[in-house]
Amino acid sequence: MYTPNTKVIDIGKRPIEDYVFEAVISFQEGVDEIILKGRGDFISRAVDVYWALKDRLGDSIELSNIEIGSERVRGRMRSYIAIHVKRKY
Amino acid sequence: MYTPNTKVIDIGKRPIEDYVFEAVISFQEGVDEIILKGRGDFISRAVDVYWALKDRLGDSIELSNIEIGSERVRGRMRSYIAIHVKRKY
Repeated sequence: MYTPNTKVIDIGKRPIEDYVFEAVISFQEGVDEIILKGRGDFISRAVDVYWALKDRLGDSIELSNIEIGSERVRGRMRSYIAIHVKRKY
Repeated sequence: MYTPNTKVIDIGKRPIEDYVFEAVISFQEGVDEIILKGRGDFISRAVDVYWALKDRLGDSIELSNIEIGSERVRGRMRSYIAIHVKRKY
């Protein structure tokens, strides 16, 4: 669910640590759920970001859902992943 | 669960159609569940294989689980995805 307290972080080619930092700050600011979204070649990177974030925050977060989807971009299908991470406390 | 009737297909750099073909044949041979496993850069590819397989087999298969993990390979951590696909009928 995309509640007001959900933040979507689009994973691209910036360093993994940038996305981890963005997620940590968002949780500190009161966001309850973060969705790490990676498309095409960035799917692998979204998974890497998840593990780097898990290393950083440990048991204070949990993986609540993983979706894989496919969407049409300029006439061709492109796969994506959406990794839902919740703050536990 | 990795039952005797589960087949793991490791996704690598062969054409996507090869993996789809392997999965279709396995289901025809009586396999109930296929796990598409992609490591590192092949994570995106595993998702692409899933969608190509879904296009081919439609409602006769269902996505039963998606795991993302991280394992140590030659001293460094490498992420993976395991997409579990079940035959419905």
